Amino acid sequence: MTKNRIRDYGINIGILKTGKNNSITDVKGVKVGHCTLNDGDIKTGVTAVIPHEGNIFREKLIAAAHVINGFGKTTGIIQINELGTLETPIILTNTLSVGCASEALVEYMLKNNADIGVTTGTVNPVVCECNDGYLNDIRGMHVKKEHVLESIRSADVLFEEGAVGAGTGMSCYELKGGIGTASRIIEIGNNTYTLGVLVLTNFGLKQDLIVDGTKVGRTIDSSIPKNESEKGSCIIIVATDIPLLHRQLRRVCKRTSIGLGRTGSFMGNGSGEIVIGFSTANKINHYDSEDVMNIKVIRDDKINTVFRAVIESTEEAVLNSLICAETTKGRDGHVRYSLKEYKI
Amino acid sequence: MTKNRIRDYGINIGILKTGKNNSITDVKGVKVGHCTLNDGDIKTGVTAVIPHEGNIFREKLIAAAHVINGFGKTTGIIQINELGTLETPIILTNTLSVGCASEALVEYMLKNNADIGVTTGTVNPVVCECNDGYLNDIRGMHVKKEHVLESIRSADVLFEEGAVGAGTGMSCYELKGGIGTASRIIEIGNNTYTLGVLVLTNFGLKQDLIVDGTKVGRTIDSSIPKNESEKGSCIIIVATDIPLLHRQLRRVCKRTSIGLGRTGSFMGNGSGEIVIGFSTANKINHYDSEDVMNIKVIRDDKINTVFRAVIESTEEAVLNSLICAETTKGRDGHVRYSLKEYKI
Amino acid sequence: MTKNRIRDYGINIGILKTGKNNSITDVKGVKVGHCTLNDGDIKTGVTAVIPHEGNIFREKLIAAAHVINGFGKTTGIIQINELGTLETPIILTNTLSVGCASEALVEYMLKNNADIGVTTGTVNPVVCECNDGYLNDIRGMHVKKEHVLESIRSADVLFEEGAVGAGTGMSCYELKGGIGTASRIIEIGNNTYTLGVLVLTNFGLKQDLIVDGTKVGRTIDSSIPKNESEKGSCIIIVATDIPLLHRQLRRVCKRTSIGLGRTGSFMGNGSGEIVIGFSTANKINHYDSEDVMNIKVIRDDKINTVFRAVIESTEEAVLNSLICAETTKGRDGHVRYSLKEYKI
Amino acid sequence: MTKNRIRDYGINIGILKTGKNNSITDVKGVKVGHCTLNDGDIKTGVTAVIPHEGNIFREKLIAAAHVINGFGKTTGIIQINELGTLETPIILTNTLSVGCASEALVEYMLKNNADIGVTTGTVNPVVCECNDGYLNDIRGMHVKKEHVLESIRSADVLFEEGAVGAGTGMSCYELKGGIGTASRIIEIGNNTYTLGVLVLTNFGLKQDLIVDGTKVGRTIDSSIPKNESEKGSCIIIVATDIPLLHRQLRRVCKRTSIGLGRTGSFMGNGSGEIVIGFSTANKINHYDSEDVMNIKVIRDDKINTVFRAVIESTEEAVLNSLICAETTKGRDGHVRYSLKEYKI
Repeated sequence: MTKNRIRDYGINIGILKTGKNNSITDVKGVKVGHCTLNDGDIKTGVTAVIPHEGNIFREKLIAAAHVINGFGKTTGIIQINELGTLETPIILTNTLSVGCASEALVEYMLKNNADIGVTTGTVNPVVCECNDGYLNDIRGMHVKKEHVLESIRSADVLFEEGAVGAGTGMSCYELKGGIGTASRIIEIGNNTYTLGVLVLTNFGLKQDLIVDGTKVGRTIDSSIPKNESEKGSCIIIVATDIPLLHRQLRRVCKRTSIGLGRTGSFMGNGSGEIVIGFSTANKINHYDSEDVMNIKVIRDDKINTVFRAVIESTEEAVLNSLICAETTKGRDGHVRYSLKEYKI
Repeated sequence: MTKNRIRDYGINIGILKTGKNNSITDVKGVKVGHCTLNDGDIKTGVTAVIPHEGNIFREKLIAAAHVINGFGKTTGIIQINELGTLETPIILTNTLSVGCASEALVEYMLKNNADIGVTTGTVNPVVCECNDGYLNDIRGMHVKKEHVLESIRSADVLFEEGAVGAGTGMSCYELKGGIGTASRIIEIGNNTYTLGVLVLTNFGLKQDLIVDGTKVGRTIDSSIPKNESEKGSCIIIVATDIPLLHRQLRRVCKRTSIGLGRTGSFMGNGSGEIVIGFSTANKINHYDSEDVMNIKVIRDDKINTVFRAVIESTEEAVLNSLICAETTKGRDGHVRYSLKEYKI
Repeated sequence: MTKNRIRDYGINIGILKTGKNNSITDVKGVKVGHCTLNDGDIKTGVTAVIPHEGNIFREKLIAAAHVINGFGKTTGIIQINELGTLETPIILTNTLSVGCASEALVEYMLKNNADIGVTTGTVNPVVCECNDGYLNDIRGMHVKKEHVLESIRSADVLFEEGAVGAGTGMSCYELKGGIGTASRIIEIGNNTYTLGVLVLTNFGLKQDLIVDGTKVGRTIDSSIPKNESEKGSCIIIVATDIPLLHRQLRRVCKRTSIGLGRTGSFMGNGSGEIVIGFSTANKINHYDSEDVMNIKVIRDDKINTVFRAVIESTEEAVLNSLICAETTKGRDGHVRYSLKEYKI
Repeated sequence: MTKNRIRDYGINIGILKTGKNNSITDVKGVKVGHCTLNDGDIKTGVTAVIPHEGNIFREKLIAAAHVINGFGKTTGIIQINELGTLETPIILTNTLSVGCASEALVEYMLKNNADIGVTTGTVNPVVCECNDGYLNDIRGMHVKKEHVLESIRSADVLFEEGAVGAGTGMSCYELKGGIGTASRIIEIGNNTYTLGVLVLTNFGLKQDLIVDGTKVGRTIDSSIPKNESEKGSCIIIVATDIPLLHRQLRRVCKRTSIGLGRTGSFMGNGSGEIVIGFSTANKINHYDSEDVMNIKVIRDDKINTVFRAVIESTEEAVLNSLICAETTKGRDGHVRYSLKEYKI
């Protein structure tokens, strides 16, 4: 994380402490990797979120998904919400490459699990997307299976934000968007937990941008926004080590919309806003001799701090995705400027 | 509306024009009435929203409900979402009086519709609630059936905001909350429409209050908020004359959470936040000779202005509920101060 | 249970063993009580399901609700699905008496819990309903608060089925319906569990009735069914001692529709079909010093037997509600005949 | 349709009249095509459902999706339920080929719509799946993009049922399953409508099979079913020319579970049961100069016949998928016998 982030501008979102790197990877075991395709009209890529260091198919995590606005093509969330578990890495890419990424992820899972499709069932690949067509030749479908594998391979605790990986060609508030992250430390009783958020930002109108309460967008562009043109999407991944059930994770995922809203989003019609959350606190073994498991669960009347943490992290992650993204010139000469080029 | 509202303080939320009265009743046909119970430890009441001037059971409106946070006891929304229609006035009161209000509303509907329960089916009473127990002797269950009828009878285009009707005993951001409203004018093509919101506010922590982007709450109280104590609720009623289907109204209702969030809400665990929206543009006759109806519907790709309108209206209605509410001393000497007593 | 039940006719639904009494009360701690109002045109009443023998507000149970068809007025399910808990007895009555029953249940809870509304929050009353207007003077609103209390007071392990309690005036398949129950024993690993179902039946057309695969309805009435006339409802309460989470209980509740369908239901438009399930295996204390709980949970890949059990129990409970109900003459001379009067 | 279907065995499900071909293609404009891969251990394929004869991206149909049991990987339903429209053919294939089919479908849509991804947004590919791994070398991922295109190209009014297309390797009730279809004629007022269902069947235990009320499965195999082994899935596509809104189509889709249940399904844990429905009665133009559309809608109180039609069609389509499927020997010598080989 060599670029300057929003905190470096003196903007501190919320009241909770950040994790060590102020990153989703502050949650132990979580890693993020990118594969960036940046060549002329090709402005796209892949980002992978690895939920834990073991075999995620064999040791699933409790997970949940929430649809803020369903104008989107994310795959895998039906099963996440039925069974309450995540069993693959989460792949982010452009809208028209979901099929390719899904196939690559299945092949990756098959390679690492000889039982899938033979002695056990199939696997539920989770692939999220935003439409980077403004800057990227999205019809070219330039993401290939090796790019997906590369994003997984390169996953690490430290990773770049901004115009990288799946964020390479994304636009946010008609500025350059992309990948952003943030995290918070949560104290509940005598225990200390971490919650982190990673966003892929691709939504919003310039005039609507709010930075920590200040209507920066109206300064940048004082014209009346054309509402009908709002398109885009936002993918939000929430990771935590707090012991949360599927029902509780859904509640947490739902709160991310407040964080988005505080940066100026109005959940535009064309914006596919999808949230996937998982907890590393309990592992669900694919094979188990026990019929009845013991699960740790936080009481719902202690969950407010978690809500606060996910809202703060989401707001800050969106701002990081903007401030870390470099000005990018892409398809047909389209340009998205970095927020850095404006006074905020 | 004799009290000063938030615009009188120079605070103008958003960019859209308000309706004539900046009120839910700017939507033609909509009326609001209150019955206020304010006597010592009794700080409660009833508010009625009348959706149109005709017989609402015979001429139903297309409607939808959305649960932001389901720690609430609102009745009637299962049927609203199955059939997509509203067939009674909407009654707001305190949590423990839902049963009484429901019974009163049923009796009111029976009186005006001799066919219900004899030659046709039953009726779906819609009653919403927040817990006013901090200021009100809620265990006393002081709301009686005549108070519900009185709130319906007194419904009018002009109505008070703040600590009146169902809002008499409510607390918002640990200040005095209650009833607030706001509206917006929407231009779509050559047509002009109106959307209005009424809120019953009873949520939030003082330190979290945001007024048009300014963190007023931290000025009022700079201590660290105790997250676990956040309780309360918010009821949001959305009315419009835009021709929206049930599916579209649900989308519109969902966006209110952005408006709440911009005033500082984090959708606390204990806060039952429920939204009910209806459109006056199409009427669904209970009895009809035609099997197939013709319904007007706005295209989804024109809906962004509606989203913006509902978000702005919700944010402003919450602020109106605060600024219009007088400081109130209630049960056991509990006091909630008016936002007016602080510099904002 | 002195009346003859469907098994006494040699009809054994499914392949699993029944519990001791083939009743929802085979689940340890569950009790059922009735208050029957049967006087001329008054054919209605109340049924109470007591989830366990302790203080249910202080020791909540994990619960879930599922809406099969939402043309209904059941209260309390929003909160059940948000928090995943049940904190009151479940009351069943006629549609227009939900308000009264709700008020009575709140008063009952207040009486037994001095903290509600003073030092802790409010309470979520769960009241379910069907429309008994064909046989009952439902407009008369004859259920009073004392009837609700009487149903709770009279709750016991043994209870009557058929035209009793809330079932007094109900119609099922245009025959006499009402209360029915059934249960199944479930073996998972070395453990033995019980699942029981109680239904309040008030749906269906005579010609559609199926008894264990045999189209009995077409024998009873060979005319073409008038589809448009199908009205009614069905309330289904599922109790079990299997350790199930909210998410899993929802899955179980969903399967009841298969049981209904096997008796001939097509989930008619006008039929409010609502399912509430709870598990007695984990208790959630309202007050607790621990932030993190340990919860027992069955693995989802062991749940198929539970699905089978709930389907068999629902099918058999519906048939019991029919065969146990005596021919009833009610409002305006309307008559519903007992299934007993037909050869099956 | 040269094979004998279930009606040829004297088994007539329900009371409504069938359409001309008793097929989903009785709905005007709907076509179905297959591409079958049948070579040794390769027992798989693709089936395409074409919703109407025009450009489906430019003239979308009102649609809805319902998840009966979400252990499945179908793509596209988030957007169907947000916007209420279908804008591509529906592709059915095996679970691990969803990515490939999705990519192929996107390429097909791009080829036919030069605007996608350039001057307008992206496209929402709808791909459904079941796991044919028992008979098919599913790990081999033998479905290629050309097979998807071939299934679209070959779409016609007349098409085969049983072990063809996506159904080539599917198992149902541990017998040979696959593709089945059926339709019903619906009279509402003076109008005549058609509703058709296509199923891809891959669920159930042999002992549970019910044929028109007769427990055929217990005759075929009288052993106790091992519940834990129930895996599989069922995809159900519903087409109709009745003017139904998204909300109403969801209600219709929901009723298919009754049809499944009457053939013996208990919605097993591992069975991804997904329903997609669309109506050809209203077309939603992608580009339109009008902001407000006029939509035809059937009244909900006339919908019962539609519910009956979809239940009957689903039950019969499942039986057709069984009786039309030939005994198949596949991977590792696994065999699924045809229902034809048993006395029913």
